[in-house]
Amino acid sequence: MSTTVGILGATGAVGQRLVQLLVPHPEFEVTTLTASPSSAGRPYSDAAKWRIDSPIPDDVADISVVETDPEAVPDGVELLFSSLPSDVGAAVEPAFVEAGYVVSSNSSNGRMDADIPLTIPEVNADHLGLIEVQRDERGWDGALIKNPNCSTITMVPTLAALTRFGLERVDVSTLQAVSGAGYSGVASMEIIDNVIPHIGGEASKMETESRKLLGSFDGAEVSLHDADVSASCNRVPTLDGHLENVWADLSEDPTADAVVDAFESSRGVDLHSSPERLIEVFDAPDRPQPRLDRNLGDGMAVAAGGVETTTHGVQFNCLAHNTIRGAAGASVLNGELLLEEGYI
Amino acid sequence: MSTTVGILGATGAVGQRLVQLLVPHPEFEVTTLTASPSSAGRPYSDAAKWRIDSPIPDDVADISVVETDPEAVPDGVELLFSSLPSDVGAAVEPAFVEAGYVVSSNSSNGRMDADIPLTIPEVNADHLGLIEVQRDERGWDGALIKNPNCSTITMVPTLAALTRFGLERVDVSTLQAVSGAGYSGVASMEIIDNVIPHIGGEASKMETESRKLLGSFDGAEVSLHDADVSASCNRVPTLDGHLENVWADLSEDPTADAVVDAFESSRGVDLHSSPERLIEVFDAPDRPQPRLDRNLGDGMAVAAGGVETTTHGVQFNCLAHNTIRGAAGASVLNGELLLEEGYI
Amino acid sequence: MSTTVGILGATGAVGQRLVQLLVPHPEFEVTTLTASPSSAGRPYSDAAKWRIDSPIPDDVADISVVETDPEAVPDGVELLFSSLPSDVGAAVEPAFVEAGYVVSSNSSNGRMDADIPLTIPEVNADHLGLIEVQRDERGWDGALIKNPNCSTITMVPTLAALTRFGLERVDVSTLQAVSGAGYSGVASMEIIDNVIPHIGGEASKMETESRKLLGSFDGAEVSLHDADVSASCNRVPTLDGHLENVWADLSEDPTADAVVDAFESSRGVDLHSSPERLIEVFDAPDRPQPRLDRNLGDGMAVAAGGVETTTHGVQFNCLAHNTIRGAAGASVLNGELLLEEGYI
Amino acid sequence: MSTTVGILGATGAVGQRLVQLLVPHPEFEVTTLTASPSSAGRPYSDAAKWRIDSPIPDDVADISVVETDPEAVPDGVELLFSSLPSDVGAAVEPAFVEAGYVVSSNSSNGRMDADIPLTIPEVNADHLGLIEVQRDERGWDGALIKNPNCSTITMVPTLAALTRFGLERVDVSTLQAVSGAGYSGVASMEIIDNVIPHIGGEASKMETESRKLLGSFDGAEVSLHDADVSASCNRVPTLDGHLENVWADLSEDPTADAVVDAFESSRGVDLHSSPERLIEVFDAPDRPQPRLDRNLGDGMAVAAGGVETTTHGVQFNCLAHNTIRGAAGASVLNGELLLEEGYI
Repeated sequence: MSTTVGILGATGAVGQRLVQLLVPHPEFEVTTLTASPSSAGRPYSDAAKWRIDSPIPDDVADISVVETDPEAVPDGVELLFSSLPSDVGAAVEPAFVEAGYVVSSNSSNGRMDADIPLTIPEVNADHLGLIEVQRDERGWDGALIKNPNCSTITMVPTLAALTRFGLERVDVSTLQAVSGAGYSGVASMEIIDNVIPHIGGEASKMETESRKLLGSFDGAEVSLHDADVSASCNRVPTLDGHLENVWADLSEDPTADAVVDAFESSRGVDLHSSPERLIEVFDAPDRPQPRLDRNLGDGMAVAAGGVETTTHGVQFNCLAHNTIRGAAGASVLNGELLLEEGYI
Repeated sequence: MSTTVGILGATGAVGQRLVQLLVPHPEFEVTTLTASPSSAGRPYSDAAKWRIDSPIPDDVADISVVETDPEAVPDGVELLFSSLPSDVGAAVEPAFVEAGYVVSSNSSNGRMDADIPLTIPEVNADHLGLIEVQRDERGWDGALIKNPNCSTITMVPTLAALTRFGLERVDVSTLQAVSGAGYSGVASMEIIDNVIPHIGGEASKMETESRKLLGSFDGAEVSLHDADVSASCNRVPTLDGHLENVWADLSEDPTADAVVDAFESSRGVDLHSSPERLIEVFDAPDRPQPRLDRNLGDGMAVAAGGVETTTHGVQFNCLAHNTIRGAAGASVLNGELLLEEGYI
Repeated sequence: MSTTVGILGATGAVGQRLVQLLVPHPEFEVTTLTASPSSAGRPYSDAAKWRIDSPIPDDVADISVVETDPEAVPDGVELLFSSLPSDVGAAVEPAFVEAGYVVSSNSSNGRMDADIPLTIPEVNADHLGLIEVQRDERGWDGALIKNPNCSTITMVPTLAALTRFGLERVDVSTLQAVSGAGYSGVASMEIIDNVIPHIGGEASKMETESRKLLGSFDGAEVSLHDADVSASCNRVPTLDGHLENVWADLSEDPTADAVVDAFESSRGVDLHSSPERLIEVFDAPDRPQPRLDRNLGDGMAVAAGGVETTTHGVQFNCLAHNTIRGAAGASVLNGELLLEEGYI
Repeated sequence: MSTTVGILGATGAVGQRLVQLLVPHPEFEVTTLTASPSSAGRPYSDAAKWRIDSPIPDDVADISVVETDPEAVPDGVELLFSSLPSDVGAAVEPAFVEAGYVVSSNSSNGRMDADIPLTIPEVNADHLGLIEVQRDERGWDGALIKNPNCSTITMVPTLAALTRFGLERVDVSTLQAVSGAGYSGVASMEIIDNVIPHIGGEASKMETESRKLLGSFDGAEVSLHDADVSASCNRVPTLDGHLENVWADLSEDPTADAVVDAFESSRGVDLHSSPERLIEVFDAPDRPQPRLDRNLGDGMAVAAGGVETTTHGVQFNCLAHNTIRGAAGASVLNGELLLEEGYI
């Protein structure tokens, strides 16, 4: 028996990835697709300019798009995935939750709110307990759960593995793909033969979200991890796959092999979309590379490499597919967790 | 009265840049071009596959290339610029110096030798004093002077400006252009829609050379600066211009403005190829960018931007043209310094 | 004594190129810059997001932008250059000409109108005579003159040289740079590792405009040249420079050398922006290439190469800088021609 | 029961694609991999620098590479696939055939030899009859069969469909991916922000091979088709997928719809690797595009689009994956045909 789901903001870049991942999903059945008023009433195949290199799934091509409004969602939908622009998300997600919906959202609004779980199932599934806090405080029937920013997700599974060695400080430099800015987000005139050493708001998301993800939940609130995180974010001319250079200062003094072991033994979770191994570690110093390695684990694994000790801890590289593990796949995985944990 | 000069390894990528910079140079006259035996005897326009987007200068097109051998260099040449592959440089540069030549070399061999000056004129011109040590120890008549690696040069002028605040540690991530690997060094199949998170030997060059450049010279030897430098080097799909994300830990606690002032007031030197201002600082957080800013100061300036304080010091980005300021122009500038200081 | 000029649509990509070319121009003085109402009243440096890799000229940075309206243009302006979007151009250019202004326009509206001169000064300067027709028919005091589309301009100088051999048919395939679509016209997601084999409206512009440019003017009207032109237009991942593969069927049977001679002897005109040689022909079969050759003649020359005879005539490649010779420079050259011919 | 096969030149770019296609192939079992003497004796995983983005298949990783010499191939191998460099192929392929092997070769040597079948199974399977001629004339026991050049294969299925309308002339412009030149064939310095309007020997291959493929076989020899083919070949910055703009002059006057019908009804063959539909036609004028459409039919289909009539016939675009349908897959398909037809 599959769960009936809808997608809020289904025509955008992440919305299309959600469609791609959810249509063949054995646990979910997509019945509802929302978009802006100008798309409402049109078949999805017409409202969405489909950009993914596999064809638009037959099962959704003829679904009539509805407005992003709780009133417009038909009865029977049990779970909503949201890839709304953050300003729209901030305005309408609470209305959906108030109306009783469980929402797994990729939108950046509210991620740092004290009573909203920000989760990567393999890292901090226990933070889902915040839903009770949320319901108490806001009087909500439904639930709102967030996944972090794509560049944060890429790095945090490796940092989580390092907490056993006393994680104290992180300097991280990102080389991010253009798809992270949405389909039209980066003009070709900006990025051919070029790099842009700044992505608005991105560094601060990495610095705050990672500390919440690594924080501990005592049943009432999440205490941010006290690691000092500093990010420098660059846009580079790759299509998909964020690569990151990380320096992690540790209070202990593990060998590079011990760090590799910690990465490779990162526990996965027994959810449909979770890769068999959360972190794949490469020996070759020139890996991972975005084009070669972004599809590991169907785009849901994190790849790591170049692990070396430093005076203060360890340095290494990590990589994940930014629109799968870093966005749509992250929301789907959170949806699977909500189902597994009985919130739906 | 101009100084008669030759170029060792004149047909390669850096050799061509040397030709481009030296032919119109008011202080130098290029009379001699060396290459491998297979090129010897051929006119330069035929031996070199000219790759620069301005035409091959008439003044050198017909020069007959000679072998890279002191015997083959005609009398009267007073200064040699070397862009030999490092293994060739290691084998033949000492022979030229023994034969009495002054050699300004871009080749990586010998850069860390205790008695070989590794200099950026604006940073550590005083290290030229090592030439006396070198002559004493090796019995040489000539002199051998090196410029650092392109990725090192990009960063060190900014670090030199930070030493006033007590430079303790540097984490640096590089986004390096393909021209740094030579004309055929990076295949298009490797780098289109991709990034390679490793450049063989590059990180260790940055870590050691920068400490020598920032070190103090007491008349007999250079003490390496004790900053702890850790680099992570990436190849990206840009043609020219190395961009670097730097975290510098400082013992003092300057404001971002104070750091910008330190950068902007970095003293230049009064040499022909030195830019008016050594470091240009951008306010806009998305600058410098390789394609837009690599030609600042005719490719001899360092651009900086994104200056922000951190818990431990400061983070910022810097950029320089890797084959001009980072290679050929660096050797030319060292040649100008040698002339100015009376070594020729 | 320089002529006082204004730029209609000065903040866009071609408008910025016009600024770059006109500010240092010895014959013109830029006093007026127009843009959409939202920019009116703001200094140009603020209204335009400057994208060119040389700095914004001081002479225009502080000019206060005015609305694109004849009423808003101050007295004394004698010539207007227009790079308005074609729908805006269609709406407002006639109003400017009615108000007495001479307008040299790059906008595509009206190019094929029977009484509007469409000119490349080196090819069909005599078509300027249509201005009399235009004034008679429309009762205009000013004048409206157009330059062709960037992909048309690249090819037509070579075709003009071939008319002596009886030009009968042209098949042309274009490889066009992303700048031709404006700064944000081509998303990086569309074009990295990709080619788009269609540019809306482009093929038909090449097919009709080229026949008008090559047509003969009898003092009253232009008869289209009867060559059969068929174009196939592709967008490729280059920044600037349109490359075109041309097959030209000829009634005569010239040798490749005769074709090269015809290209090389194409007469230039004695105007400030016209290159010394209109068409530069390369011997090397792999030239011209966009990145290496787009700046020939300061971006105003056409490069050709790969000239070979076929069963039906000749095939060859040609290249021009699309935003200089193909757009802003084309309008400037037409402005110089208007001045030379006494229309201003 | 599967056929035991070997790959000549297994470590190169096409050799790796052959490995990728043949290892999971239900009709073939790969037991033998040859390479140059320096690789002989080493396990394949060590001899080949694996570049494909799926992992090296376990079944071949440990196979010990042997020299490319009939003596070195173990008994029992029934069919050889060759992706040798053409000079090596010319030297050694005849020796293999003399020794009794059946060789399906992608190498360019001998393609136009009168007694060597040059085949695309869907187009001219009957040319296989040349094997009898070949055996008679050369006294060979084995057989040598060739597939055409990648850029030829992309176009010929569409031309074959047009022969019903009286194909008279073809002008074709190609936009070819860098993988067509082998892994290191195009330096990134050559092709970033650039196009190269020449590929050595490519135009003449397209012009001659296509006429042989479309020629008729009378049991003794192949008469070349008399269409006049003229090609212009460009290298562009795409990784895989050759796109071609074609003008085909026809003696009849079909509508665009009739041409589309002819394309879509191109008969396939009932072989394992042949796509369900040989030519997929797009309605959208901006398709096919290399990155979106190169993998149609697992890389074995030809995509077409932009079909429009001209004064002389029709123009359209076509696209195929150059290292699958255009090289390794073409050889595999020929191998399947040889098996089907009883030559093995």
